[in-house]
Amino acid sequence: MYDESLPVPSPRDPTAWGTVGDALADAEHEAVGLMLSQRFGADTTWRSSDAPHELQAPRVHAPDPLAHLTSDVTEDRLLHAVGRSFTDMVALRETGVRHAPDLVARPRTPDEVEAVLGWCADAGIACIPFGGGTSVVGGVTAGVVDGPVVALQTRAMDRVLEVDTTSRAALVQAGATGPSLEAQLRPHDLTMRFFPQSFEMSTLGGWVATRAGGHYATRLTHIDDLVESIDAVTPNGRWSSRRLPGSGAGPSPDRMLLGSEGTLGVITSAWVRLQDQPVHRGGMSVTFDDFADALAALRPLVQSGLDPANCRVLDPGEAYLNGAGDGTRAVMVVGAESPAVPVDADLSAMAELLADHGGEVGTVRIRGRQLSTRDGDAADAWKQAFLRAPYLRDALVDHGMIIETFETAATWDRLGALVERVRAATASAVEEVCGQGIVTCRITHAYPDGAAPYFTVIAPGRRGARASQWAEVKQAASEVLLAEGGTITHHHAVGRDHRPWYDRQRPDLFATALGAVRAVTDPAGIMNPGVLLG
Amino acid sequence: MYDESLPVPSPRDPTAWGTVGDALADAEHEAVGLMLSQRFGADTTWRSSDAPHELQAPRVHAPDPLAHLTSDVTEDRLLHAVGRSFTDMVALRETGVRHAPDLVARPRTPDEVEAVLGWCADAGIACIPFGGGTSVVGGVTAGVVDGPVVALQTRAMDRVLEVDTTSRAALVQAGATGPSLEAQLRPHDLTMRFFPQSFEMSTLGGWVATRAGGHYATRLTHIDDLVESIDAVTPNGRWSSRRLPGSGAGPSPDRMLLGSEGTLGVITSAWVRLQDQPVHRGGMSVTFDDFADALAALRPLVQSGLDPANCRVLDPGEAYLNGAGDGTRAVMVVGAESPAVPVDADLSAMAELLADHGGEVGTVRIRGRQLSTRDGDAADAWKQAFLRAPYLRDALVDHGMIIETFETAATWDRLGALVERVRAATASAVEEVCGQGIVTCRITHAYPDGAAPYFTVIAPGRRGARASQWAEVKQAASEVLLAEGGTITHHHAVGRDHRPWYDRQRPDLFATALGAVRAVTDPAGIMNPGVLLG
Repeated sequence: MYDESLPVPSPRDPTAWGTVGDALADAEHEAVGLMLSQRFGADTTWRSSDAPHELQAPRVHAPDPLAHLTSDVTEDRLLHAVGRSFTDMVALRETGVRHAPDLVARPRTPDEVEAVLGWCADAGIACIPFGGGTSVVGGVTAGVVDGPVVALQTRAMDRVLEVDTTSRAALVQAGATGPSLEAQLRPHDLTMRFFPQSFEMSTLGGWVATRAGGHYATRLTHIDDLVESIDAVTPNGRWSSRRLPGSGAGPSPDRMLLGSEGTLGVITSAWVRLQDQPVHRGGMSVTFDDFADALAALRPLVQSGLDPANCRVLDPGEAYLNGAGDGTRAVMVVGAESPAVPVDADLSAMAELLADHGGEVGTVRIRGRQLSTRDGDAADAWKQAFLRAPYLRDALVDHGMIIETFETAATWDRLGALVERVRAATASAVEEVCGQGIVTCRITHAYPDGAAPYFTVIAPGRRGARASQWAEVKQAASEVLLAEGGTITHHHAVGRDHRPWYDRQRPDLFATALGAVRAVTDPAGIMNPGVLLG
Repeated sequence: MYDESLPVPSPRDPTAWGTVGDALADAEHEAVGLMLSQRFGADTTWRSSDAPHELQAPRVHAPDPLAHLTSDVTEDRLLHAVGRSFTDMVALRETGVRHAPDLVARPRTPDEVEAVLGWCADAGIACIPFGGGTSVVGGVTAGVVDGPVVALQTRAMDRVLEVDTTSRAALVQAGATGPSLEAQLRPHDLTMRFFPQSFEMSTLGGWVATRAGGHYATRLTHIDDLVESIDAVTPNGRWSSRRLPGSGAGPSPDRMLLGSEGTLGVITSAWVRLQDQPVHRGGMSVTFDDFADALAALRPLVQSGLDPANCRVLDPGEAYLNGAGDGTRAVMVVGAESPAVPVDADLSAMAELLADHGGEVGTVRIRGRQLSTRDGDAADAWKQAFLRAPYLRDALVDHGMIIETFETAATWDRLGALVERVRAATASAVEEVCGQGIVTCRITHAYPDGAAPYFTVIAPGRRGARASQWAEVKQAASEVLLAEGGTITHHHAVGRDHRPWYDRQRPDLFATALGAVRAVTDPAGIMNPGVLLG
């Protein structure tokens, strides 16, 4: 079953997004610095990461039976101290981290998870489930918790335990990362086809716990729809749902865990739906005078039933940043794919529809079988542009910039106004806080009834003050976003950072109900305190 | 907004499935009787419904401020006494009903719902939310509740309050039935395209509360996926979610109400997603040597990405009952549709795939714009075959038959064995209990990872004993169904009838959690007691 030829990643850098080997090289840093100083005329000198981390001493020690599963090594604790938001990166690379989990536990089985949770509950120790640690919303921040903390690292459970090629589904342990999971599925010629930007580092358990969204803008792209069943361990016992393709038996147990962000228990495995590799593929770029025009064309496209496999929309600034234009026009990238029939007719129909709505259609490309994410060509290009972004972000942090993203979703009737008002409020806050900066927007997910705008802010920051500078910008943006009818998060999750707005967004009775659920699964209230609840 | 030309149905028959006008005519009864006596050689004489209903006297009276919203008229109470399962029909048409709600309340606004619930909670009166009353699982049975009962009838709230043609969504009150809702959407050239078999009688609120499934076997066919937001009134206050096309902000509040079956509160309205009418349509019938062969072809079809708009599979007996064959071959009915591009190429590809898997493909029909369900042709044929079935069931009840259906879903790896073992166990129970009978199976919903088999039992019953006869058959079938990895219900809901198996199917901790949620929204435990919980 298990493919011994799993990729062996280069070691992870505890103060960076990902692995040591994939960080930007010196020459790249120089090029980035030059580009930034030309654009902003500010001090964008590269300073290598040498933040003064002074972690508090561990306040607890594991009891003997669990000692072999735990670590209090400083580098381990640092790696589990925070997530990977901009604020986290500033702490990791500039201002230093002072609070880390007292211990990192690495259970290898559900029984061992149960033992760790049992100990934590008895001893009143908070437990933060930790997969890839890629939260950009304060979902795994140990320092904000009062008292001792254990980070429960799930990565030791990273196997695909069973593949059902008949139903095209697999039982996957929670700690499997994207590359590990796909490598284990490859011998079966199946793919989960779930590619969040954190793909390299994040884990199945994290995806389920945070209701993650994949790279594709349309069709099956939410982890919610890929889950057949979930196994979890809570401080109050096991939770295991029945594997089903569909069911109407009461409210869905799985939907109670999806999005629970570690507050109800630890997801240990899930049966997930798989797909064949697409055989027929094609795509095109379409440009528009401006973002509003592109949105006005996107809506009929996703309402047409033509069902593109992907369709991203970049505003002119975003297009420029991504090397997809000169910054004067908005760009829509449309993809079509099918395992069964050629996509030419669909692409032609889409091109015609988009031209009718003011789009200038570029060359339509038809391609054959999609290559896997390891095998070069298109997949490699995607990897470069998409998976590489967080590494670039590390570099911009080192160059003294503020660089962060936030996202939402809204129905079409509100979308245009929301985008412009959030953009204006954010730009105004950036101007006030940083003097200058860039605010761009792209659409990451598109639905027949709405879409998900994703904003990027890049501005020269004040070293030593960037975390609070960003907090001010984020506050301004979030207020407008909520007022304009958006959700505080479409696929980044709530964590601790989004709490003020999440608390206003959700029904109050639901919040109380969720608290009651937590009191059942976690009577001592040790699971990821401060996230979603409490 | 509201279309004054809503269809005015003929009066509802309180002891039948639907309206008085649509019941079978005398000549039809004679034909049915002849057919049954030929098939079963048993006493299948038609006896018109004259069950002795002796309802208990109302035990409570509404306080003055609510008096104008309530009724204790006998016919009203009888209409709200039970649902429309076979067992209910036997009670309504043969053995008589003794227990009915003490009062029927008809609030017209959420405020009035709140007032009714407030009174019930204060006075310790059970409240059963009641839409169309079409439950086939004991979801609205008043008689099994200890103490006084108020049936909260939502039908007075049946308006489409707002249509957002940009996002293609509508705010619909919970009491709108299928025909009422579609009639109000028609002026906007939009459709909800949600056609459960109970379409004529059932309501939006009931669909949401029971996680109903529509007529289509594939694509958007579950109410879960059509809901943007939900407004509910609970005994502990309002619950109103934000209207969003997608969100990753914590566990979904809507998914907690979807499937709650009236146990958490009363759904008063929901924003639902709409669609354009399809322009391009086509279909074909494909026959197979047997049901197993048809299932073996269905799986690659739904895994192909060809994405049929519908695909039903009937076993030979089911095909015969539906006039779709001579009972020697299994029949697959495949439909394709698109609002944008012709479906010819897709249909050809599907035909080729099915032929490769042993199917004998009949004529491929290509049709134009789908007619509405009122306007004859294909839609009328569907209405006859599908919506008419419950009326036919009433007739079979009067002819002394046992006639009932049950359904499940399972992943493909288990499906073939499940179907055959459930069929064998059911046939064996029918043989034992009734001496003879028919057990047929069709697939009502098909997924890439599994499908939903739907069983029909028709057997000559013993007048006066049919309810217990059926209970014995159902018990045998349900045990095997659960043991073979199915869900106790795919789209019929849990109600009271499925409790023994539902309780074994769901995670125990989830059951406790759901109870905790209910304690928040309904501290007095008045909402639909016995359903899902307690």
